[in-house]
Amino acid sequence: MPFTPFDWIDDEARRRAAAGLVRTVRPRGARPESLDLASNDYLGLTRHPEVTAAAAAAAHRWGAGSTGSRLVTGSTALHADLERDLADFCGFEAALVFSSGYAANLAALTALSGRGSLIVSDAGNHASIVDGCRLSRAETAVVAHADPEAVAKALRAHGGRALVVTDSVFSVDGDAAALPDLAEACRPANAALLVDDAHGLGVLGEGGRGALAAAGLAGRDGVVATLTLSKSLGSQGGAVLGPARVIEHLVNTARTFIFDTGLAPAAAGGALGALGVLRREPERAARARQVAAALHTRLTAAGLTAVRPDAAVVSVRAPSADAAVRWAADCRAAGTAVGCFRPPSVPDGVSRLRLTARADLTEEQITTAVATVVATAPRQAGTDLSG
Amino acid sequence: MPFTPFDWIDDEARRRAAAGLVRTVRPRGARPESLDLASNDYLGLTRHPEVTAAAAAAAHRWGAGSTGSRLVTGSTALHADLERDLADFCGFEAALVFSSGYAANLAALTALSGRGSLIVSDAGNHASIVDGCRLSRAETAVVAHADPEAVAKALRAHGGRALVVTDSVFSVDGDAAALPDLAEACRPANAALLVDDAHGLGVLGEGGRGALAAAGLAGRDGVVATLTLSKSLGSQGGAVLGPARVIEHLVNTARTFIFDTGLAPAAAGGALGALGVLRREPERAARARQVAAALHTRLTAAGLTAVRPDAAVVSVRAPSADAAVRWAADCRAAGTAVGCFRPPSVPDGVSRLRLTARADLTEEQITTAVATVVATAPRQAGTDLSG
Repeated sequence: MPFTPFDWIDDEARRRAAAGLVRTVRPRGARPESLDLASNDYLGLTRHPEVTAAAAAAAHRWGAGSTGSRLVTGSTALHADLERDLADFCGFEAALVFSSGYAANLAALTALSGRGSLIVSDAGNHASIVDGCRLSRAETAVVAHADPEAVAKALRAHGGRALVVTDSVFSVDGDAAALPDLAEACRPANAALLVDDAHGLGVLGEGGRGALAAAGLAGRDGVVATLTLSKSLGSQGGAVLGPARVIEHLVNTARTFIFDTGLAPAAAGGALGALGVLRREPERAARARQVAAALHTRLTAAGLTAVRPDAAVVSVRAPSADAAVRWAADCRAAGTAVGCFRPPSVPDGVSRLRLTARADLTEEQITTAVATVVATAPRQAGTDLSG
Repeated sequence: MPFTPFDWIDDEARRRAAAGLVRTVRPRGARPESLDLASNDYLGLTRHPEVTAAAAAAAHRWGAGSTGSRLVTGSTALHADLERDLADFCGFEAALVFSSGYAANLAALTALSGRGSLIVSDAGNHASIVDGCRLSRAETAVVAHADPEAVAKALRAHGGRALVVTDSVFSVDGDAAALPDLAEACRPANAALLVDDAHGLGVLGEGGRGALAAAGLAGRDGVVATLTLSKSLGSQGGAVLGPARVIEHLVNTARTFIFDTGLAPAAAGGALGALGVLRREPERAARARQVAAALHTRLTAAGLTAVRPDAAVVSVRAPSADAAVRWAADCRAAGTAVGCFRPPSVPDGVSRLRLTARADLTEEQITTAVATVVATAPRQAGTDLSG
């Protein structure tokens, strides 16, 4: 009998190829080869000399790794400093750092729900939220995107312990959640509100303090935020922010905290360095929003269909997955790197180009980027697709 | 109506306190305050000057973060170098790096199973494997710990597509899986074998090439390994190793690959640096095993109950969770840091001290550690508990 346990993988690969949905890893060099409108480096801090120096210094001082679970040997004074600074900056009582935003979402969702409770989740939420719901053993009600009334209805139908979860800024279309409306929906049901501020931190709120600070919800008793350290803060990792009792609860129960190695010192140091730059230069946040608005205005003026950006992500619709891949490749060939989102990374099956409005883009770079995206657009891009 | 969505957390905290199961984060300083037998730094490479220098250099050269998903901007030539070196060192065709070993296990389990298929999982497997099974939508058969015949029976009962998953070295008791027997059980069922070599890499096999190399199974068609970069390699991150088609399949389907930010350059650089040291100084692997054997021999000679170590983890039984916590605290007060495993981190409810046999421990340090653990042992430790 032949031993071929992975032959089914070849069948799936053939199906992907036929559907034009093959993904390939394309390693880049150390120096930018093109104008970057594809990364999540919203504030341009990943290569900021203070940030890279802080990361390097942390590796030298604390070692290349944290050596264990945060509950054994993996918690350092550096992690504690970062947690204090994150909580203080965003206006929460306490914070807990994880090795990724993905791990932070899995932790918050599993630890703050559980069997018999309800999670109400926006249909556009990030994959890590979807996976957290699946792991939680809670009943999950997936409600229509951006529909606080549907959230209120799901909460009323359940009646018991409940948690509402949403991205603050949806990564595919760059639109923001109506956080005050969601908080209103939570109140009569005594439901908690969990907000993934991955794409809001550093961009929204005064000086980039995030979507919850902007909405006046940071630090409220029933409100918890998750963050990434890998976007505006230019590093790696994630965090949960909330009341101290929530953080203590995560320390005691969250499997991706207890059973994961602590974040590497270099990543913690880099994120701390980036927070320092952002405190000193709060104008970076507003500049990222201005760049996004400029990109949107000029792209739609040229006849393309783009969603009005609430933060620093500008989403431009493409006629098909194939066309989106060709469009992005043509942009890259012309010197401008843009993101390309297609199934299964899009909740609605619609493929897009995804442009990142970095705070450090110059006027000239914005002009170049817009000219490139418009010049390489597929013929149908402006007409066939209404948002 | 009062708005108090987290009051239930206080009830759980009271229950934990009453059961003696409260966990607290204790941040450590930059310099070792005690003799470290608690971390997973098996080869003593986390603070190796070559490893920290490689991490720091990567932060300076590549930035503090990777800036995006590995499929957008988060793949660098450094990631590709690390993947080639890991695959080559461990004897596999290809490798894929993740932000954590946890993420690597979630990826491998979800991408290599699926609805209608079967996962057969050892009852002692790590939490990240358990979570991967839960996320997979596959039917999961949890079989008795270290029982290849039970694995074969579960495979026969299912008949369809199947994956057998096991830790190579179980982190709680330090015992090794019978990999050749598991591979034998897989063959008639045409089942794949997934082995988490987190605690085997750097310790088992010639020059630390891992448990699969030691068993002659590395690179076999139906065999996949997951690794961490945060233990023997002293850094952060995880990896999946296997046939090239399996790695391509993960690139296209694994959610913790597609939707996570790529590993930070400093962590990739640190792991590459550690691999270089290990290639040059292969004797570190054997030394870690010798230290473990010495610890076990001396602790059992002193009347304590310890499991014979198959790798670099030495597990010593404690009479209760409370006693284990006190024992570990007494060791720390006497200058030796040891791990303390208790529910829910132990599959069988038995609390233990967990000692790490670091390759760079001196004879004098081993003598000191043994003397401390023996002198602080609770009265019943040697008698009440049989393994």
